[in-house]
Amino acid sequence: MEKTHLKHKHGAPKILNYSVLIVSDTRYLEIEEGKKSTDMTIPVIKEILEKNKQNFISFQIVPDENLKIKEVLLQLIKDKTDIIITSGGTGISKRDITIETIKPLFEKTLEGFGELFRYLSFKEIGSSAMLSRASAGIINNRIIFCLPGSPNAVKLALEHLIIPEAGHIKKMMKE
Amino acid sequence: MEKTHLKHKHGAPKILNYSVLIVSDTRYLEIEEGKKSTDMTIPVIKEILEKNKQNFISFQIVPDENLKIKEVLLQLIKDKTDIIITSGGTGISKRDITIETIKPLFEKTLEGFGELFRYLSFKEIGSSAMLSRASAGIINNRIIFCLPGSPNAVKLALEHLIIPEAGHIKKMMKE
Amino acid sequence: MEKTHLKHKHGAPKILNYSVLIVSDTRYLEIEEGKKSTDMTIPVIKEILEKNKQNFISFQIVPDENLKIKEVLLQLIKDKTDIIITSGGTGISKRDITIETIKPLFEKTLEGFGELFRYLSFKEIGSSAMLSRASAGIINNRIIFCLPGSPNAVKLALEHLIIPEAGHIKKMMKE
Amino acid sequence: MEKTHLKHKHGAPKILNYSVLIVSDTRYLEIEEGKKSTDMTIPVIKEILEKNKQNFISFQIVPDENLKIKEVLLQLIKDKTDIIITSGGTGISKRDITIETIKPLFEKTLEGFGELFRYLSFKEIGSSAMLSRASAGIINNRIIFCLPGSPNAVKLALEHLIIPEAGHIKKMMKE
Amino acid sequence: MEKTHLKHKHGAPKILNYSVLIVSDTRYLEIEEGKKSTDMTIPVIKEILEKNKQNFISFQIVPDENLKIKEVLLQLIKDKTDIIITSGGTGISKRDITIETIKPLFEKTLEGFGELFRYLSFKEIGSSAMLSRASAGIINNRIIFCLPGSPNAVKLALEHLIIPEAGHIKKMMKE
Amino acid sequence: MEKTHLKHKHGAPKILNYSVLIVSDTRYLEIEEGKKSTDMTIPVIKEILEKNKQNFISFQIVPDENLKIKEVLLQLIKDKTDIIITSGGTGISKRDITIETIKPLFEKTLEGFGELFRYLSFKEIGSSAMLSRASAGIINNRIIFCLPGSPNAVKLALEHLIIPEAGHIKKMMKE
Repeated sequence: MEKTHLKHKHGAPKILNYSVLIVSDTRYLEIEEGKKSTDMTIPVIKEILEKNKQNFISFQIVPDENLKIKEVLLQLIKDKTDIIITSGGTGISKRDITIETIKPLFEKTLEGFGELFRYLSFKEIGSSAMLSRASAGIINNRIIFCLPGSPNAVKLALEHLIIPEAGHIKKMMKE
Repeated sequence: MEKTHLKHKHGAPKILNYSVLIVSDTRYLEIEEGKKSTDMTIPVIKEILEKNKQNFISFQIVPDENLKIKEVLLQLIKDKTDIIITSGGTGISKRDITIETIKPLFEKTLEGFGELFRYLSFKEIGSSAMLSRASAGIINNRIIFCLPGSPNAVKLALEHLIIPEAGHIKKMMKE
Repeated sequence: MEKTHLKHKHGAPKILNYSVLIVSDTRYLEIEEGKKSTDMTIPVIKEILEKNKQNFISFQIVPDENLKIKEVLLQLIKDKTDIIITSGGTGISKRDITIETIKPLFEKTLEGFGELFRYLSFKEIGSSAMLSRASAGIINNRIIFCLPGSPNAVKLALEHLIIPEAGHIKKMMKE
Repeated sequence: MEKTHLKHKHGAPKILNYSVLIVSDTRYLEIEEGKKSTDMTIPVIKEILEKNKQNFISFQIVPDENLKIKEVLLQLIKDKTDIIITSGGTGISKRDITIETIKPLFEKTLEGFGELFRYLSFKEIGSSAMLSRASAGIINNRIIFCLPGSPNAVKLALEHLIIPEAGHIKKMMKE
Repeated sequence: MEKTHLKHKHGAPKILNYSVLIVSDTRYLEIEEGKKSTDMTIPVIKEILEKNKQNFISFQIVPDENLKIKEVLLQLIKDKTDIIITSGGTGISKRDITIETIKPLFEKTLEGFGELFRYLSFKEIGSSAMLSRASAGIINNRIIFCLPGSPNAVKLALEHLIIPEAGHIKKMMKE
Repeated sequence: MEKTHLKHKHGAPKILNYSVLIVSDTRYLEIEEGKKSTDMTIPVIKEILEKNKQNFISFQIVPDENLKIKEVLLQLIKDKTDIIITSGGTGISKRDITIETIKPLFEKTLEGFGELFRYLSFKEIGSSAMLSRASAGIINNRIIFCLPGSPNAVKLALEHLIIPEAGHIKKMMKE
């Protein structure tokens, strides 16, 4: 999309550190029960970060539970991570509580991320884009992106919105 | 727009039940005073639902008053209705209070509906799209769409966002 | 963009009164210290308003401080101003507090302005559009647009969203 | 307590209309299952109102469910009731949701009622007074008192706070 | 009450600056219409401050209107005032909007002031104490006390809560 | 105070587990710099719990920083702790942020604790009681009491409100 354009604007891409938090009862249970993980999001994130010369620091998997999500998120915020990606729990079913859990912790909300993510999704998948409640915000000088659980959604957000702006965001938050 | 695309994605369309709540002092007074209704939204909704083989269950007309809107809405939520459409009271004049009245009752807010509705409106009618505060959210496993009072706006929302996703939404909320 | 279209829709443009509030520590200090102002936004606003036969009433420059912003804003709201434009302090750095300061004063929030502004910005500048928290809302029958500090952003908002709808908004708020 | 004192202050007591809403899964199930009600609060309320020459209009029993409470409350608000008393669901267990349900509907909250009710309870029953979240507020020119489910608590609130001030409140809200 | 006790605790009383904001349509109209003011609160405040060797800086009278209250309050916050007293508009009638207007501006709310004020009022006037929504909070290192419009209420708050703690508060806010 | 009375009411006291979180820049720095701690609150808490045959599980000391407080609190919530006591940071100076940090995490707020604590403090120390913002609330079936940093305040809260009700609270939250 706007990639060539953005490369010019921000100069050489900065190398930043990314941590990932998968929010999913299903994925969590697979691990608890020693089963093979059916997660397809982590490999997609790793591949995109590698291709863009970004650092993948760590991932963790938590169930759809308010306190577990908060606890891991607050640990990540103390780490050397620059960007935190959560994936899963942004839909409209009762178990989807990632947004309800994380949004009240944001010091600043970045409404524009959710809007443009849904606009780009709409171009790709049509009206079901409106069912995602993807959001982004700032806690303690780190930016948190709450993405849906599907690999395609994560790819769209990373390639078209997050990675092109990550260096820019880091610079702004230092000011 | 994305219609062909969406038909493939969701398989055969589900038949759902729709109820309509017209919010308008003018329409309400016409009925109170025994005059002929000048409403042009209900026929449009009926026609679109029929064409798409959806069930139109009922409509009610209430004035722009907080407690009357809440009371009818809470009745509809107990009915066999799957989707509740309100029409009117989403603008910026002092009498427009539909959004102020209904939004605090949402258990989950679907920001994406308002955003994509305004994006699609912008394509059709230009900058005045920004004056609509159309919203959607979930109360008690039912989804409520708060639409403007104009037949064109209602048509746009139903054909491009609500009907294509209605079956999908119902399935997700059962999970 | 939609300009020809909108001219037809709203008839002859209305002449309205605009006041401007620049929110910027840097610009404020320049004045305090008797230096030449490096502001490039005010001339852009003046020129666009003139070209569109709108009245530029006044401008003021305040630092990025909660109480100073509120105080000047509340003075403007008592004036004969129809439209208040703030410029600056909508980004994500710690000093950016315009949105945090003004949003809680809104009687109605116009989500659609921020959304469509970011959509139009995205078309122009790509993903960095998501970093702006531009917003609009209503206080005491006046509409306040909180824009970024860059001349390009202000130009985009004025030409494509604010001026085409200003007459429409004023009419609606009288109802 | 302050009774003699208050009688002097407000002159002859006004006769007002009271409706009661019992919020309790247990009481609701007794009725559903055709069992004898074990409720002991309604007779206490009736007796106190009678003794004070106040009108007991009606009572209803609902389970501890958000939407059922809201629906009955909104019906009562349209009736000729002056004062609405809810009893039950003000404690700290998970099922206690009366306060969470009703407080967001208050146009004005009367913090003083809860405070003085707990102060008076503390004098009677000691520290467990702090576990009640009794509240009062105003919706549509009616005052709603949310009381605990115990007959003693209801008696304390009615005799020492509600009945002495009811006429005063009604007069003030007309102003 | 606790006065002797408090004198010991805080040592020699500090001399602070007080400004007063009377919020009342009636008082405001009297002035507008050139009538003799029927206000009885300002003389009471002046006398108490004088007796306690505190500085009375200024008073202003505004109607019960959101924007006028906010505007004067924000001016006072820039002055050399230490303590701001508002009087009036804390009751439960529709015109009483002082609390709704000022509370959202508080950086910190001092719940304890309202609670103890109502407890002391209850001891003096009985149950009608619960109808006052008196509050206190902090904006920009100044403390604002929102008191009822009656001279007795103002006297109670000043003598038993505000003046004994004023020096203490000022010292704490500098830390 | 009401102690004899309460012993009768709740039967034999239950033995519960208590954890303590001291919130204080000063205490935290003493430890960081290897100095002798000047804390006088922990010994008071230990002694009172011992005298009342309650279990003191652990204490931690954190600086007055939002994220550090949240992180330790969320760890305690996963432990076998029944009651969490925080001490410090409840005053009105800029560094006092315990209440701002913890209150948004409460699932239920127990207004009655703060009210009755301030009422009892008022009886002991007079008007300065109003400067404490002590609060209590529930997160994940645990009750958190946010107390001031002074040994006297902690003693008052534990002996007159927390310990007498602890068993009662635990029982209610299981229901």
